[in-house]
Amino acid sequence: MTAPARFSLNQQTVRQWSLPELAAGCAAAGVRRVGLWRGPVREYGAEAAARLVRDAGLTVSSLCRGGFLTAADPAGRAAALADNRAAVEEAATLGTGTLVLVAGGLPPGSRDLPGARERVADALAELGPYAAGCGVRLAIEPLHPMYASDRCVVSTLRQALDLAERFPADQVGVVVDTYHLWWDDTVAGQLVRAGEGGRIAAFQLADWVTPLPEGVLLGRGQLGDGCVDLRWFHERAGAAGYRGPEEVEIFQPGLWARDGAAVLAEVLDRYERYVLGIPAVTGK
Amino acid sequence: MTAPARFSLNQQTVRQWSLPELAAGCAAAGVRRVGLWRGPVREYGAEAAARLVRDAGLTVSSLCRGGFLTAADPAGRAAALADNRAAVEEAATLGTGTLVLVAGGLPPGSRDLPGARERVADALAELGPYAAGCGVRLAIEPLHPMYASDRCVVSTLRQALDLAERFPADQVGVVVDTYHLWWDDTVAGQLVRAGEGGRIAAFQLADWVTPLPEGVLLGRGQLGDGCVDLRWFHERAGAAGYRGPEEVEIFQPGLWARDGAAVLAEVLDRYERYVLGIPAVTGK
Repeated sequence: MTAPARFSLNQQTVRQWSLPELAAGCAAAGVRRVGLWRGPVREYGAEAAARLVRDAGLTVSSLCRGGFLTAADPAGRAAALADNRAAVEEAATLGTGTLVLVAGGLPPGSRDLPGARERVADALAELGPYAAGCGVRLAIEPLHPMYASDRCVVSTLRQALDLAERFPADQVGVVVDTYHLWWDDTVAGQLVRAGEGGRIAAFQLADWVTPLPEGVLLGRGQLGDGCVDLRWFHERAGAAGYRGPEEVEIFQPGLWARDGAAVLAEVLDRYERYVLGIPAVTGK
Repeated sequence: MTAPARFSLNQQTVRQWSLPELAAGCAAAGVRRVGLWRGPVREYGAEAAARLVRDAGLTVSSLCRGGFLTAADPAGRAAALADNRAAVEEAATLGTGTLVLVAGGLPPGSRDLPGARERVADALAELGPYAAGCGVRLAIEPLHPMYASDRCVVSTLRQALDLAERFPADQVGVVVDTYHLWWDDTVAGQLVRAGEGGRIAAFQLADWVTPLPEGVLLGRGQLGDGCVDLRWFHERAGAAGYRGPEEVEIFQPGLWARDGAAVLAEVLDRYERYVLGIPAVTGK
């Protein structure tokens, strides 16, 4: 059994699986790439996790996530930088060249979005050379504007590229995630820009479904269940020169309540139909 | 008792009030402008509502709302156009020159955002001349991108202006609502553009607070409780030449559970402090 070559399973899609279950489940399904998260990796031990996935024939497409770089106070800022250096080292240990960064939200009581965005740039200036020295690229992920206050002050692909382009392309890239960007009618042009500059460091997929749940964190849709033209993103990123992993990352309790192997099989089927555009097998 | 001259109370902020209570409550507080909604106006009768507010010394800053113009089927489209003509007539009856339009979301099963946006433009071409003939301007309201799939395919001020500028300025304008636009770092330039073209048809205020509630409709914040720099919007709109009403429109069950007059007094206090920048009275 073999999954499409560029397909990657982000472990949050099957949060019910431990790391060993993830490695075994992916191997059984012919999946060759996984996106990992720092929490479970640190719990298991980064070295041990690296061995585990390597022994299962897997490569790590990205590590999620560093970032949260908007603190205005010196202590908070120093702690964030130290934590991000540790994240860079964990990424290097796992053998992935991509560390996903979520910028962080506004500090409590602040209304200064431009100031917060500038502090992110300052942090990238400190972290970029260190990351590149470890063979890791920082990948800024623009998050949907509904997270702008409490999670990520970088809301569009243009903003992410404006930030990234202040630094060498081997230090800072961007994440293209369909869930966050689908609504934006400027995204086609920004994908071209990102491709031309060699800035697409990661590509993630989830669908948009409503109603959104309280807190709006865990409402992502299975591929094909929502209104995002996933194939359009796949084709536009490809036309812009992106040939890297396509990671499916769906935060959804409905998927976590099911058997992990069944979820992975469904994700693979949906990926082929809605992302690659391969018709469903008749009678399936 | 007199409220600031440009202040307007959108009736959704005090949904607990009937129309007569709204008229009396505003008169008692020295408020001279109200924003009305079609549902309560139709229930009361548009003619009677017009008399009621006029007799209380109030003018109507805007009527919310028409729109929902994205239906792809001929019957749905015809029904939407008829409903919007009725809304135009209700606005004219109320003596307001501004009918707020919410574009509408994607039809069920559709992934075609550009197509839906184009159908909105087609509808404006039909409705604009009729509205202008009634002395009413259609005011396109860009809604936060979190509503792009199910409520409004127009998500940014730039998109709203791109649409409006296809038509004469007396037919189609835009709504500037801080709740929907605060996160967008291109909004300063778009406010200048909107002002230069004479396109700012309405200005609405609410604050952004988290966590968002399920469905994300009723989570707006009282002025000053969130992270929006309301005064910045007030000043930028003013610098762009806007001198019209500033309508406070907060959908929040917490406000509806309280005494309407107390809510209005709080809104007025917050408006003075956080929008106009008048310091709070000492000891208050």
